[in-house]
Amino acid sequence: MTPVAVLGAGAWGTTFAKVLADAGREVRLWSREASVAAAVNEQHRNEQFLPGIDLPAGITGTTDPAAALAGAGIVVVAIPSQVARGALAPLAPLIEPDAVVVSLMKGVELSTDRLMSEVVAESLGVPEDRIVVVSGPNLAKEIAVGQPTATVVASTNEDAARLVATACGNSYFRPYTNDDVVGIELCGAVKNVIALAVGIAQGMGYGWNTAATLINRGLVEMTRLGVALGARAETFAGLAGMGDLVATCASPLSRNHTVGSHLGQGLSLDEAIAATGGTAEGVKSSQSVLELAAKHGVEMPITAGVVAVVTGAMPVQDLGPMLLARPQKAEGV
Amino acid sequence: MTPVAVLGAGAWGTTFAKVLADAGREVRLWSREASVAAAVNEQHRNEQFLPGIDLPAGITGTTDPAAALAGAGIVVVAIPSQVARGALAPLAPLIEPDAVVVSLMKGVELSTDRLMSEVVAESLGVPEDRIVVVSGPNLAKEIAVGQPTATVVASTNEDAARLVATACGNSYFRPYTNDDVVGIELCGAVKNVIALAVGIAQGMGYGWNTAATLINRGLVEMTRLGVALGARAETFAGLAGMGDLVATCASPLSRNHTVGSHLGQGLSLDEAIAATGGTAEGVKSSQSVLELAAKHGVEMPITAGVVAVVTGAMPVQDLGPMLLARPQKAEGV
Repeated sequence: MTPVAVLGAGAWGTTFAKVLADAGREVRLWSREASVAAAVNEQHRNEQFLPGIDLPAGITGTTDPAAALAGAGIVVVAIPSQVARGALAPLAPLIEPDAVVVSLMKGVELSTDRLMSEVVAESLGVPEDRIVVVSGPNLAKEIAVGQPTATVVASTNEDAARLVATACGNSYFRPYTNDDVVGIELCGAVKNVIALAVGIAQGMGYGWNTAATLINRGLVEMTRLGVALGARAETFAGLAGMGDLVATCASPLSRNHTVGSHLGQGLSLDEAIAATGGTAEGVKSSQSVLELAAKHGVEMPITAGVVAVVTGAMPVQDLGPMLLARPQKAEGV
Repeated sequence: MTPVAVLGAGAWGTTFAKVLADAGREVRLWSREASVAAAVNEQHRNEQFLPGIDLPAGITGTTDPAAALAGAGIVVVAIPSQVARGALAPLAPLIEPDAVVVSLMKGVELSTDRLMSEVVAESLGVPEDRIVVVSGPNLAKEIAVGQPTATVVASTNEDAARLVATACGNSYFRPYTNDDVVGIELCGAVKNVIALAVGIAQGMGYGWNTAATLINRGLVEMTRLGVALGARAETFAGLAGMGDLVATCASPLSRNHTVGSHLGQGLSLDEAIAATGGTAEGVKSSQSVLELAAKHGVEMPITAGVVAVVTGAMPVQDLGPMLLARPQKAEGV
């Protein structure tokens, strides 16, 4: 068993490092910040990004990417999606030639409309059959405290998916393999947009009937986009689709939900981001998702509404009427 | 437009009467309790079952079923499901010969394993093509305050479904028609069982990753049962399936969720029912659902776990391990 390198010591990267270490792997956690690497080594904590969690001794912190990547047969990438390309490119020569690269990132790259597995493959120069994506109902703070959680580990290469599933499976983290990489990644990108919509509705005072309807119809539009892009409809009905969508929309822990809720209460986007203490993935991805949909002739009314609110093109109070003012019809049409 | 009779003045029956009256229909709300009928007529309120809500003047309360049913072209039934057969049978001669009968009830009759539309048809002597069922993400307390809500109106007879959709559609209540009555009814019955499971998990301290996984896998087992019984898989992915399941499991307003949560905290079933102030539909339906599944050779592990906890056959702390201790595998298998 080779060591595993985890690039990025945010909440999800640090949590996944803990999952791997708890599964018995030696883990090197790379952070740009010396204070984070030192705290991981000396206090076995990452108070800055994962407060209150004791980390296993099997995790070593480092600010040196070469030290993290040397000999690592599995490289896990957990870098904010919009800066991933720039951060990863210089690391390409340091990746072991047969290493499997795992993307924990969700979203669509703004400038290129690329999914994160494509960004990783292109920036690190790794072929598709060594790329794996992990996605599911995976709120980091719950996994970090050992809550039982299921996830999906997807790759076009079944052996690579199994390698990663075996590396991360432990008593509280249960991976299922899947080969629909595009579907799994679209789930991860679009669910943040739907969570924003649900947050907006709840911020406006709407209850669970409205939220459940947005979640249900949101899944329909996610699936429609996925099928147009060659993904399988079943993927969207699974853990990384419906499962993650429900967790993200229902949990008060989701940042997308929080930003949306502030927007729904009438704050501007800047004010909502300030009140949340940072932006949310769905804010950045919504426009790219809509562009992808337009490119493939797919109608996504909820995503379009979110983009209109986020860009300031439509006042938030017009979102409800926009989504509800459609003629009576049979379900599914 | 003939008057509409609503049989049963509980929270959902009263709310649906309000929906119909707000859609412009004359409504007669039948209650066994003279105090409820009098309050509806005199204060335009039903404090006992729908506190705090002003009812439209278009609703008349009565304790006389003949007065409620005379001339009514639509008869809405909202009686607790386990007593519906006995309550309805004496009313059969009072139903207008061409009236369409709408069931708002969810669950499976314990003694017969019959769905509610079958109970209504048999007890009132009304043929299937005059039976309509209404189901969706429809938390009564949210609809009663005018929250925008979507629902499904299903009948094997498209004209009957359209008649009811037109009667109840208003500015905040948006019906979609559907012809998969068995599917819609199974959704309504099984979702209460899954909500109990989610409540149990949350009562035990598990978070949204676990809840979302139970909701996702719960939908899979609901769909499996439905398909075995001749329903369409798409119905379970729709508003009355996934939509209602999410609303019921996520909202703190659901009684099934509350009873489950008390069970998860270690209370016995009797204690949990007492703490909730009454039982929940899922407690009563879970065993019938499992019997239906066994009869059709369908595996329903979450339902089986709920039945084991509810009947006292398994301590609640064994539910998690029972559901999680399954071998690693590919998703969907």
